[in-house]
Amino acid sequence: MGERKGLKNRGYTEEDAEDRRTAVEEFTGVEFEYIKRCGMDYEGASKNIENMIGVTQIPLGYAGPVKIRGEYAVGDFLVPLATTEGALVASISRGMSVITKSGGAAVHVFGDAMTRAPVLRVRDLDHCIQVMDWIDNNEKAIQVAVSTTTSHGKLVRIEKFPDGRNLFLRFSFSTGDAMGMNMATIASEAVCRLIEKMTGAVLVSVSGNMCSDKKPAAINMIEGRGKTVVAEVRIPKDLVESSLHATSATIAETNTRKNLIGGSMSGMLGANAHAANMAAALYIATGQDPAQVVGCSTTLTTCEDIGGDLYMCVRVPTVEVGTVGGGTRLPFQKEALQMIGCLGEGKAKKLAEIVAVTILAGELSTLAAQAAGQLGSAHAKLGR
Amino acid sequence: MGERKGLKNRGYTEEDAEDRRTAVEEFTGVEFEYIKRCGMDYEGASKNIENMIGVTQIPLGYAGPVKIRGEYAVGDFLVPLATTEGALVASISRGMSVITKSGGAAVHVFGDAMTRAPVLRVRDLDHCIQVMDWIDNNEKAIQVAVSTTTSHGKLVRIEKFPDGRNLFLRFSFSTGDAMGMNMATIASEAVCRLIEKMTGAVLVSVSGNMCSDKKPAAINMIEGRGKTVVAEVRIPKDLVESSLHATSATIAETNTRKNLIGGSMSGMLGANAHAANMAAALYIATGQDPAQVVGCSTTLTTCEDIGGDLYMCVRVPTVEVGTVGGGTRLPFQKEALQMIGCLGEGKAKKLAEIVAVTILAGELSTLAAQAAGQLGSAHAKLGR
Amino acid sequence: MGERKGLKNRGYTEEDAEDRRTAVEEFTGVEFEYIKRCGMDYEGASKNIENMIGVTQIPLGYAGPVKIRGEYAVGDFLVPLATTEGALVASISRGMSVITKSGGAAVHVFGDAMTRAPVLRVRDLDHCIQVMDWIDNNEKAIQVAVSTTTSHGKLVRIEKFPDGRNLFLRFSFSTGDAMGMNMATIASEAVCRLIEKMTGAVLVSVSGNMCSDKKPAAINMIEGRGKTVVAEVRIPKDLVESSLHATSATIAETNTRKNLIGGSMSGMLGANAHAANMAAALYIATGQDPAQVVGCSTTLTTCEDIGGDLYMCVRVPTVEVGTVGGGTRLPFQKEALQMIGCLGEGKAKKLAEIVAVTILAGELSTLAAQAAGQLGSAHAKLGR
Amino acid sequence: MGERKGLKNRGYTEEDAEDRRTAVEEFTGVEFEYIKRCGMDYEGASKNIENMIGVTQIPLGYAGPVKIRGEYAVGDFLVPLATTEGALVASISRGMSVITKSGGAAVHVFGDAMTRAPVLRVRDLDHCIQVMDWIDNNEKAIQVAVSTTTSHGKLVRIEKFPDGRNLFLRFSFSTGDAMGMNMATIASEAVCRLIEKMTGAVLVSVSGNMCSDKKPAAINMIEGRGKTVVAEVRIPKDLVESSLHATSATIAETNTRKNLIGGSMSGMLGANAHAANMAAALYIATGQDPAQVVGCSTTLTTCEDIGGDLYMCVRVPTVEVGTVGGGTRLPFQKEALQMIGCLGEGKAKKLAEIVAVTILAGELSTLAAQAAGQLGSAHAKLGR
Repeated sequence: MGERKGLKNRGYTEEDAEDRRTAVEEFTGVEFEYIKRCGMDYEGASKNIENMIGVTQIPLGYAGPVKIRGEYAVGDFLVPLATTEGALVASISRGMSVITKSGGAAVHVFGDAMTRAPVLRVRDLDHCIQVMDWIDNNEKAIQVAVSTTTSHGKLVRIEKFPDGRNLFLRFSFSTGDAMGMNMATIASEAVCRLIEKMTGAVLVSVSGNMCSDKKPAAINMIEGRGKTVVAEVRIPKDLVESSLHATSATIAETNTRKNLIGGSMSGMLGANAHAANMAAALYIATGQDPAQVVGCSTTLTTCEDIGGDLYMCVRVPTVEVGTVGGGTRLPFQKEALQMIGCLGEGKAKKLAEIVAVTILAGELSTLAAQAAGQLGSAHAKLGR
Repeated sequence: MGERKGLKNRGYTEEDAEDRRTAVEEFTGVEFEYIKRCGMDYEGASKNIENMIGVTQIPLGYAGPVKIRGEYAVGDFLVPLATTEGALVASISRGMSVITKSGGAAVHVFGDAMTRAPVLRVRDLDHCIQVMDWIDNNEKAIQVAVSTTTSHGKLVRIEKFPDGRNLFLRFSFSTGDAMGMNMATIASEAVCRLIEKMTGAVLVSVSGNMCSDKKPAAINMIEGRGKTVVAEVRIPKDLVESSLHATSATIAETNTRKNLIGGSMSGMLGANAHAANMAAALYIATGQDPAQVVGCSTTLTTCEDIGGDLYMCVRVPTVEVGTVGGGTRLPFQKEALQMIGCLGEGKAKKLAEIVAVTILAGELSTLAAQAAGQLGSAHAKLGR
Repeated sequence: MGERKGLKNRGYTEEDAEDRRTAVEEFTGVEFEYIKRCGMDYEGASKNIENMIGVTQIPLGYAGPVKIRGEYAVGDFLVPLATTEGALVASISRGMSVITKSGGAAVHVFGDAMTRAPVLRVRDLDHCIQVMDWIDNNEKAIQVAVSTTTSHGKLVRIEKFPDGRNLFLRFSFSTGDAMGMNMATIASEAVCRLIEKMTGAVLVSVSGNMCSDKKPAAINMIEGRGKTVVAEVRIPKDLVESSLHATSATIAETNTRKNLIGGSMSGMLGANAHAANMAAALYIATGQDPAQVVGCSTTLTTCEDIGGDLYMCVRVPTVEVGTVGGGTRLPFQKEALQMIGCLGEGKAKKLAEIVAVTILAGELSTLAAQAAGQLGSAHAKLGR
Repeated sequence: MGERKGLKNRGYTEEDAEDRRTAVEEFTGVEFEYIKRCGMDYEGASKNIENMIGVTQIPLGYAGPVKIRGEYAVGDFLVPLATTEGALVASISRGMSVITKSGGAAVHVFGDAMTRAPVLRVRDLDHCIQVMDWIDNNEKAIQVAVSTTTSHGKLVRIEKFPDGRNLFLRFSFSTGDAMGMNMATIASEAVCRLIEKMTGAVLVSVSGNMCSDKKPAAINMIEGRGKTVVAEVRIPKDLVESSLHATSATIAETNTRKNLIGGSMSGMLGANAHAANMAAALYIATGQDPAQVVGCSTTLTTCEDIGGDLYMCVRVPTVEVGTVGGGTRLPFQKEALQMIGCLGEGKAKKLAEIVAVTILAGELSTLAAQAAGQLGSAHAKLGR
């Protein structure tokens, strides 16, 4: 079976892909009609996938326009969303409409660092202390090791978590406009090779899970990873009632009972309605890593009734996005990034602000719908 | 701005989409070349998205073949994966090759229920007790309410979590081969309307976050949601060393220090290397909800060195998948489901087994690579 | 050193204790004046400690009277509290006074089961399934095994958590008026020995940490352990303002920002101000296990402003208390139990209700003080 | 009822206490024989309790001697333990005996800071940023505010966690040999009053739960609170087998399956067998705050089989202890502190080291017993 030619073909041309696709058809008995409808250059995807046989196509829509008053994202935006979940785009768009009518969402990026946390094996507690001391006393050598691997990345912080024969180091890097996970990995490995050589510690894994990539971990929620972004909106009383068919008091109550109390009782990291939905649709559209939706799933959503106005805020502790490298190299994804003016250098924080505001819009719409008792009926009508 | 025709056009035909796309071009100044290369019927996506302007295309590859010894998935499978993360498919494929050479992976589905957890407001503790009593004494009426909304879904369990003026109910439904979230939502709302009428409790939100959908919550990790699936493989000593370039002892040590200890120290729900990666690539390829990757991100990965052989196991507590409805209606996604014989009725558990084995393969490959000190260099070569 | 007579003396008489105390004086150079002031019979403590050399004395006060409207605790109670933290008793008493003036606290015990969760090693997934099947099909034999170890304890539930070569079983026992940990341990071990014999599974630890005793675990917060108790009070507007010097709105706001939002952001299990304080003082006074204060530390406190009245509620998921056995055998502890009518058979649920109301009183007082900006000054005056 | 004289008597003399005790006897119908056997001066307890009516006496024993090789604790120690749990002292003592025969435990204090985390209400995101900027630019004024409240405490770090209209500040103080919670509270309030005045932010609660005192929170486990202490021992193979009746491999396996895997599956913060037990017994004996046992309950215990030797380590992230102030002022507690040379100034870190080693000893003994299948039978014999 492994002998079939296509299944061994490792090439990147369109012919290689066809060869494999034919082999897969033989193997599985499926005749492909759609996945070969590939709108991009096969070789252009060579850094993004192996064993390529075609494409998956995801419907692409947009929500907005949404007015954003950020530091980097300023103005009205149409946000590209790739999803197969009926009602999602409509719901986000409704939220954006209300945000815009309210004068827009304020948003701010509070932290920006990609982390990687190797775990080293040390001999014992004494050795652990020695290694920690060596690190404290050799910052310059460590920076040199980093600089041999990257010119964009800067090591900005080292946290040390000792546990007897395990020493976890959490490195924080500024990585420019790349999401930065690979840059951080390669630089961290270089630092660890130096530490190994100078101290006798042994690198067990360049990722010791205190990073923590694509897993829901309190350390990320508390310290942040990638960008930590907060977005808010204040919606005038009249608009709440005319557009959302609920009162601010009711929406705030829904948020308290559902997100805050329900989140606590379920042992949740974060407290939100469906932040991962917005992140997934925007990440897929713009070539971000969809597994990093996990980071956004720990969003904290809060609401207040301020004299009848509705105040809503999302704290998204872990927005791991980039505007260069990775999936942003692909042509469909580039066009989506262009829609929001986020393609290329100097745009990652702008993208992070748009992520947070999009989450805010989706939270607003869903919480208002639940407050108004509409959730079940909305889905029935739009027919997922 | 909201006045522009395209931005108000709510239609589902190709012309409607073009109309909107033109309006977006005007609004954003971007000239679209790619996203209009839509390989599917626009109207066929009407239940999956609103405001559609085209598609995103994600490179589609495959990993495998992998031999699976499940209850539902039996045989050799080529697994479709849609991703933009270079090296991921190659890594999963390497893991699958080793699994297959070892005689395949065993896998089992231990639980299967979709949950929805409304929160009701009650007057006080006395009222809360009365409502709980009413529920205990009116199971038949509740089942009737469910049956008015669905013929496929069955309500199989009600858990009650009282908190003074909040009463959380966690309903578990068997939902056949649909992922079942909407079915569960609509049925839950019907039950709550009955409870409201009979007891005076007030439905605050049909989703009170003890469900818990698309958020990382301990309740799902402990009780499961969707399918709870366990997959394992035992790799003979010789094969570990020749194929993975590491020893079983080293891989098990890596797993302990990184996943178990690092997971504990970082306050993580679950303990794995990158389960979300495999879930995301397979979910996107097969039309699952990518935000539900969050459920898989709490996977527990364990390893043992058994006399030199490597035993590896993944417990995936929350596999929320379906083979009918949602994104599985779309043609590219259908072909991917067909590749693994998972399209349509009677296939959801089979798909869940394949999800778990694919996660197992990815965990195996990554942990082995980290144990062998290859992680940084692997990414550098395949060039994300 | 180990040769010194006193340090090897294992006897339980007063003379044995003196012998040891003298040896300790020699060893440490300390001349004991206080710890020998022992008010109880040394031999009477033989089931409670080894190597006894005297006693520690903890100041004992009381808070109350507090009016309780429970199922088991009905009437006005003076609650015994042993503490060394200045201001704590005064604070609890203030809360109790307000509760009483409001007509008392309602309280209810929702669940009552002591858990023990062994972990068994099985050969592989197939074997795991077989063992689970054996358990499902041999309930009667399992009950017989339990009955050989205890006449009071009843096994009421078995949950099974499979993970490849690990099978965790969570046994729930009703244990009458004993806290029941030992009863549950001994019965669980008997069941496991039977399972070992009949299935070939191997008992690794009778406590596999899914129990989970004296550790903060989400499973206890969600499923409960010991008693799950909810207590509430509604305080009229006038009384809030005259007694607590704050408004209901301010106190509710404090609870939301501090307990609910702050609890979420810190990655907390539960959300309360200082539930462990009340539990510790009452547990120590009444001979409960002070390490089980951990269970109460995951309390959820909620507040509402209902038309100016203050509603406050505590959900204490894990009240692990008994009124027979353990520390309740000792004479000082007996008197404290007598103060609240909780000594002996038939009183454990009553005690659990009093625990929850005492926590409620302490939460009320502290939150009100913080809302009124008094926390720092209160401690300064009462001078810890 | 509140009219009775004794129940209103707020005095601190022995007569006042008798007066209250008599009133309690009348109120409850209990005739006290024991609790009046008070071995300490009533007025000497005036800073530790209100409404005092007598004492609770807890049996006091000791474990050890244990050899400790710390930075502050060096030599052989007899550790005072106050408990009512039969078998606990014997078990800890067994662990200490093995540690001592192995050459002692190494131990190190890695962090030392008491935290308090107020939550401020700000107007909106812009205001939040302004307040954060003010803090960054006014370090000197903040230090002055601290210095007006304490001469011992030093503010060493301010962390800022913004969330829209909530701004959480986590202040870390070095507090000398006091546990320091009150010092930190008073100083934090002074700083917040300054921030209020200068920025218009409003202090909602001086404790916003990101501190986090007496609650199980990931932030403490990750960043530490009080002292973060790691203790380890390496036990030679022969000694493991002769003293613990188990092999290192078996004990390490028990730790992995129970603490690491079981801890993960139960959603636990930390991973240990019963760290809270040791902390409770030692805290009560030495006048520490027993509610702070919660901090120790998140201990991480790890084991390794190193060529047949047993390596065991505990990481105790949150040891909140003091050797001046609080309960250490009381005479029984003072004698216990003297037993380990920990009374008064300059001793808090020494005490923290002894806490960690005592936890290590208890973990060792219990894990070894479980590995040897002795847990149930041990308790049956010593007869709790």
